[in-house]
Amino acid sequence: MTVSTKLSNVKAMVFDVFGTVVDWRGSLIGDFTRWGDARGIKADWTGLVDAWRGAYVPSMDEVRKHPERGYLPLDRLHRQSLETLVARFGISGLNEDDLTYMTLGWHRLQPWPDSISGLTRLKRKFTIGTLSNGNVALLNNMAKNAGLPWDLILSAELFEHYKPDPETYLGAARLLGLQPGQVMMVAAHNNDLAAAQKHGLKTAFVPRVTEYGPLQSKDFEANGNWDVVAADFDDLAARMGC
Amino acid sequence: MTVSTKLSNVKAMVFDVFGTVVDWRGSLIGDFTRWGDARGIKADWTGLVDAWRGAYVPSMDEVRKHPERGYLPLDRLHRQSLETLVARFGISGLNEDDLTYMTLGWHRLQPWPDSISGLTRLKRKFTIGTLSNGNVALLNNMAKNAGLPWDLILSAELFEHYKPDPETYLGAARLLGLQPGQVMMVAAHNNDLAAAQKHGLKTAFVPRVTEYGPLQSKDFEANGNWDVVAADFDDLAARMGC
Repeated sequence: MTVSTKLSNVKAMVFDVFGTVVDWRGSLIGDFTRWGDARGIKADWTGLVDAWRGAYVPSMDEVRKHPERGYLPLDRLHRQSLETLVARFGISGLNEDDLTYMTLGWHRLQPWPDSISGLTRLKRKFTIGTLSNGNVALLNNMAKNAGLPWDLILSAELFEHYKPDPETYLGAARLLGLQPGQVMMVAAHNNDLAAAQKHGLKTAFVPRVTEYGPLQSKDFEANGNWDVVAADFDDLAARMGC
Repeated sequence: MTVSTKLSNVKAMVFDVFGTVVDWRGSLIGDFTRWGDARGIKADWTGLVDAWRGAYVPSMDEVRKHPERGYLPLDRLHRQSLETLVARFGISGLNEDDLTYMTLGWHRLQPWPDSISGLTRLKRKFTIGTLSNGNVALLNNMAKNAGLPWDLILSAELFEHYKPDPETYLGAARLLGLQPGQVMMVAAHNNDLAAAQKHGLKTAFVPRVTEYGPLQSKDFEANGNWDVVAADFDDLAARMGC
């Protein structure tokens, strides 16, 4: 498939991860349900997981509002939110190892069915990397667990700024030694792409309409002027000439 | 092969790159000789390459001595040194594209014969990453060119400190989410391992006795109490139980 001229300068593709590459909701609900059954812990795991993800944006906003406290990596934010939520959901009897196991659930997320095949095709022609709010250890452990074939791990942690702060998109281009227009941001979230586009990156939207399960309220389709809109990662590879 | 108890905690192996993984001297001399012949430029390429590498440590020392100037990535230091050296070696007629081509020679370095096979084996059991003074773009481009199967790219650039500053070794462990003793530094240079060991990392020495060609004056053998001494990367994989 021929790639349009406007995309012929793209050298690297960086990917949002949670929801775009991996199914955080299905993975965590399945993981905790199996683990809870084995440990004899009954809980509303679905409700907990949805509430945990609900705490994600507010927890990053706190980091943004309080630079004097220093940057906290996502593992730390996840752990803090979890401690509040297990109390709210009335889940008792969890020890330190249990809380660690649950927090590291984000390191064990599973990819969507097309993620690995699409990434493997794209890697032949492009540098492929994460550009996620997950910390480096989380993203690296996830890649090792799930077999994600990244060339390199780029993370909000490297810039001590969470997306959609400009430092993340521009920092990725800088570390890659590229102009922003030589880097394409791939995401299932229109707001991530809007921020990337504002700072000069190329953009690709891939819908993940079951990401939030019955709670999904947006991102059913592209609603910006993105450079590529693809059905899934295999379709993205085809549209990028791979 | 059984791995000794003291090594059973190692989760990640980080690698010095120039000289340890890739043959910078042979690669650059060959590259410039072929390129110079094609371009009709005659020069003492061997002398230039040796002098260029000779400028490496002093150029990093300048960054260390002048923090007020800010951190300069290795591509920038290479370019600055090259401009001085082409004048000293009397190489004339080089335009901007030529100087860029030569500077990016460090992105095109070729691995030693055992590097890829050893890394591929080690990757099955360990996280494998660079821990090099090369900047991220250099290391990523090198990996894409040469087929080096890194899980992630860790670079002095991420810490804005060159090895052997402690920030590099401790920063790598921090980003990996590991204790220093869970990380092994692999290098062909005893001084790199001495610094890594001082900060708690495990150490592996692999001799590369032709790295500097006839100018090699040290690092013919291990001269510290390293955790592993291996003949090459395949032997290293075997000794690490891979």
